[in-house]
Amino acid sequence: MSRGHGYDKYSLMIGRFQPLHKGHLEVIRQCASESDNLTIGIGSAQYSHSLENPFTAGERYLMIKNTLDDEGIGDYCIVPIEDINRYSVWVAHVTSMSPPFTYIYSNNPFTRRLFEESGYSIRESPMYNRDEYSGTEVRRRIVADESWRSLVPEAVAEVIDEIDGVGRIKDISGGN
Amino acid sequence: MSRGHGYDKYSLMIGRFQPLHKGHLEVIRQCASESDNLTIGIGSAQYSHSLENPFTAGERYLMIKNTLDDEGIGDYCIVPIEDINRYSVWVAHVTSMSPPFTYIYSNNPFTRRLFEESGYSIRESPMYNRDEYSGTEVRRRIVADESWRSLVPEAVAEVIDEIDGVGRIKDISGGN
Amino acid sequence: MSRGHGYDKYSLMIGRFQPLHKGHLEVIRQCASESDNLTIGIGSAQYSHSLENPFTAGERYLMIKNTLDDEGIGDYCIVPIEDINRYSVWVAHVTSMSPPFTYIYSNNPFTRRLFEESGYSIRESPMYNRDEYSGTEVRRRIVADESWRSLVPEAVAEVIDEIDGVGRIKDISGGN
Amino acid sequence: MSRGHGYDKYSLMIGRFQPLHKGHLEVIRQCASESDNLTIGIGSAQYSHSLENPFTAGERYLMIKNTLDDEGIGDYCIVPIEDINRYSVWVAHVTSMSPPFTYIYSNNPFTRRLFEESGYSIRESPMYNRDEYSGTEVRRRIVADESWRSLVPEAVAEVIDEIDGVGRIKDISGGN
Amino acid sequence: MSRGHGYDKYSLMIGRFQPLHKGHLEVIRQCASESDNLTIGIGSAQYSHSLENPFTAGERYLMIKNTLDDEGIGDYCIVPIEDINRYSVWVAHVTSMSPPFTYIYSNNPFTRRLFEESGYSIRESPMYNRDEYSGTEVRRRIVADESWRSLVPEAVAEVIDEIDGVGRIKDISGGN
Amino acid sequence: MSRGHGYDKYSLMIGRFQPLHKGHLEVIRQCASESDNLTIGIGSAQYSHSLENPFTAGERYLMIKNTLDDEGIGDYCIVPIEDINRYSVWVAHVTSMSPPFTYIYSNNPFTRRLFEESGYSIRESPMYNRDEYSGTEVRRRIVADESWRSLVPEAVAEVIDEIDGVGRIKDISGGN
Repeated sequence: MSRGHGYDKYSLMIGRFQPLHKGHLEVIRQCASESDNLTIGIGSAQYSHSLENPFTAGERYLMIKNTLDDEGIGDYCIVPIEDINRYSVWVAHVTSMSPPFTYIYSNNPFTRRLFEESGYSIRESPMYNRDEYSGTEVRRRIVADESWRSLVPEAVAEVIDEIDGVGRIKDISGGN
Repeated sequence: MSRGHGYDKYSLMIGRFQPLHKGHLEVIRQCASESDNLTIGIGSAQYSHSLENPFTAGERYLMIKNTLDDEGIGDYCIVPIEDINRYSVWVAHVTSMSPPFTYIYSNNPFTRRLFEESGYSIRESPMYNRDEYSGTEVRRRIVADESWRSLVPEAVAEVIDEIDGVGRIKDISGGN
Repeated sequence: MSRGHGYDKYSLMIGRFQPLHKGHLEVIRQCASESDNLTIGIGSAQYSHSLENPFTAGERYLMIKNTLDDEGIGDYCIVPIEDINRYSVWVAHVTSMSPPFTYIYSNNPFTRRLFEESGYSIRESPMYNRDEYSGTEVRRRIVADESWRSLVPEAVAEVIDEIDGVGRIKDISGGN
Repeated sequence: MSRGHGYDKYSLMIGRFQPLHKGHLEVIRQCASESDNLTIGIGSAQYSHSLENPFTAGERYLMIKNTLDDEGIGDYCIVPIEDINRYSVWVAHVTSMSPPFTYIYSNNPFTRRLFEESGYSIRESPMYNRDEYSGTEVRRRIVADESWRSLVPEAVAEVIDEIDGVGRIKDISGGN
Repeated sequence: MSRGHGYDKYSLMIGRFQPLHKGHLEVIRQCASESDNLTIGIGSAQYSHSLENPFTAGERYLMIKNTLDDEGIGDYCIVPIEDINRYSVWVAHVTSMSPPFTYIYSNNPFTRRLFEESGYSIRESPMYNRDEYSGTEVRRRIVADESWRSLVPEAVAEVIDEIDGVGRIKDISGGN
Repeated sequence: MSRGHGYDKYSLMIGRFQPLHKGHLEVIRQCASESDNLTIGIGSAQYSHSLENPFTAGERYLMIKNTLDDEGIGDYCIVPIEDINRYSVWVAHVTSMSPPFTYIYSNNPFTRRLFEESGYSIRESPMYNRDEYSGTEVRRRIVADESWRSLVPEAVAEVIDEIDGVGRIKDISGGN
């Protein structure tokens, strides 16, 4: 990181990371390489213990941190960001929780629109195979007792095991 | 950090860091040295732009991160934690936002009580000179145009300069 | 308006006005003509930038004000009203945000029930062609690039153009 | 009730009771007989006047109290509990609103999971005929003008009549 | 309690009960004797673990219930009521949480005003010696290690002992 | 008002107006004369029935509207704005509730700072005699039974009389 020259190459990306999968990792790796500092916002931070959002913000934080450490990626910040259910103030809220940033990575037209209306620069996120890698798919496989470990970095599986994430997701889904 | 053996030596400390000063740094240095991982919770995360809480959570995050990088301290997590104004659920809230931890550092009888009632282990925080180092004193000096830079790590002064923190604190205090 | 004789002929109507269309205008015209003062409550005021609620309360306020000015309708108040998601206090909330009123115009059995349980008088809203005029239809046509301007007063189209409402609705719908 | 020996046989059960039906009553009767004190939590306490939740917490409180008085059941507490939409703090919230309790009755895997992660003991709720008795069914019959009184204790029907609950549910459903 | 004749003699009183003292008890005894049913609202229900509000709503509930049982007072309801920080909707909120009531006991001009503006009847609360009995005084004595037990009913002291209320209040006050 | 040329001369001013006094009126008169449209934001809109904030947003709305009508001032919008207790998103919140505006009138260094950090232009508010005219003084005189009517426009006194504002303020202050 080069400091003392403003935050021109500080960037932001946001995801829910329920859980972090290999597609996310690919995106983070590339965004981090283009930035002096990359802030990774953990969205919907207050939600957990639901089928959509099984893991707490803190558990997701550790999954991301351990993975990036394993990968040797530095110069990142991880920030849990609670949903604030009024889109008109969402960008200001994200900005206040995040270290300074100049541009944001996103391919989502809605996210792009919100940040553009607030005067931020947007960059395309790198692409990855969304059919193969998705949080929804990881959670579906866990419920169905199918093989899910290959979809996530090793450090993520480690955290899920440590906190009995499989048991939690199954209980949430009403199974036993 | 040693992983795969649970989170027995994962710990937490919480402060408002308005701004991070050299007393905080001393505490962090020692707590980190005793822990496999130290989570640093930034309290009152949603507040900013007041005399008590001039800096946003994101600005405080960057102050802490840059300082710890300068000091060569690793194996920490920084987590903004919004106040939730009901003490009976505060520990559960902190726990959900933080990576797993087993004990908490605090000398405050109230904080200790809350965590004890929830079954956590508490450790005494290392001591530092509270007369010399305090956020209140840093903010007072900034308003009074007195010398404040010696109270904070260099990286903190750098961030304050970059975001015109001095101007902001003066405007908040109603001066011009 | 005749003042100094209480608020016997002060009335209220509530809508989301996403956006104001010619059916709304017809209702407002008639209600205003029967009242000393008509308060127009903009419901779900805190929501915007979604397909259901694309426009901010402020944008909707301007649409209504400019239209009523064009129509020469006076003696009205426009009040954004944030949703408060507990129906048991909703009437009290609306009442506190609105200038005093004695009766409310509504054809909706649920709204009527809530105000009746709180002791208000209800009047039937004037009818209009709901198949032709609806906010849902206006938004659908905008997304589908169909002709929508004939459904709304000229002043509404003017505001939508000025704020690039068409671009916003398309981005929200995920199109590009 | 035996006091002065801690709260080992104090227990909790939670329901929405929209309205209390004979299945609920069966469960309460058995749980109360096994406990020194049974707290009955009225969930989603802040909601009312919707098809899912037609009755206020206070109305539901009176339905339960009058029924238990009729049945001669003592040693219970009734506690309205507002939803707090973050599952990670829900148990702490319930605990703060409820008199002390040591175990909770629930057959729901999700509820059981949340309380287990917080260190509580769980007991199976007694079974009842869920096809015959359900709040959904009571509300459906009221809307459809079918016979519903046989599904609820007499004291419940009494309260519903007194507050014109039938009229309210019909208005909510949009009928007249 | 006589049922089936509406709720003409159902009444409400509200206090914080931090903790319930003998002055409160005197008031409750008299109000209950004048009412078919008395609802006792526990105000500021979400607050606890502060010097002003040391006890949770659930702990306060148990103090009240056990005391009234000891006194042989029946026909009451105890309802925790969370503060909702907008006075304009407070009466509607209280009403929704409470079983139906027709009049409220209060000597406080502000509370009386709020209920009067909403159309309720108000009755004077019975008087008691406010110099001798007050929650503030009980808490002060606990902090100061002075004798406090004579100010509260026996069942209240019992609950305070059981939950280590003395230790909690001292920790909150920062003493040890 | 000239439309169709953007909102370059649309402006905003914010006050609590508890109640509107002649100093406020002077400011509004001058700001309105310099603007194509002036939005008057009623701050702390959700508060009422306290000594600081005795009047509801709706009552304050009517005071302002009737006064401006009496004065023949047109081309204004009145918008109740609820406080959102995080300064970092306050400007975004105000912006969403208000019709579009390009500059804001304020002499308060803090308000100016917040809007400047969000990129808005600020203009000095016109001055008035703050010793003579202040809401605090009006409320103090009402409590003290001193003469207050000369401090407010006639239409304001009219509304205060109509809603028994004097009685309310006295009850709030605990007097009788």
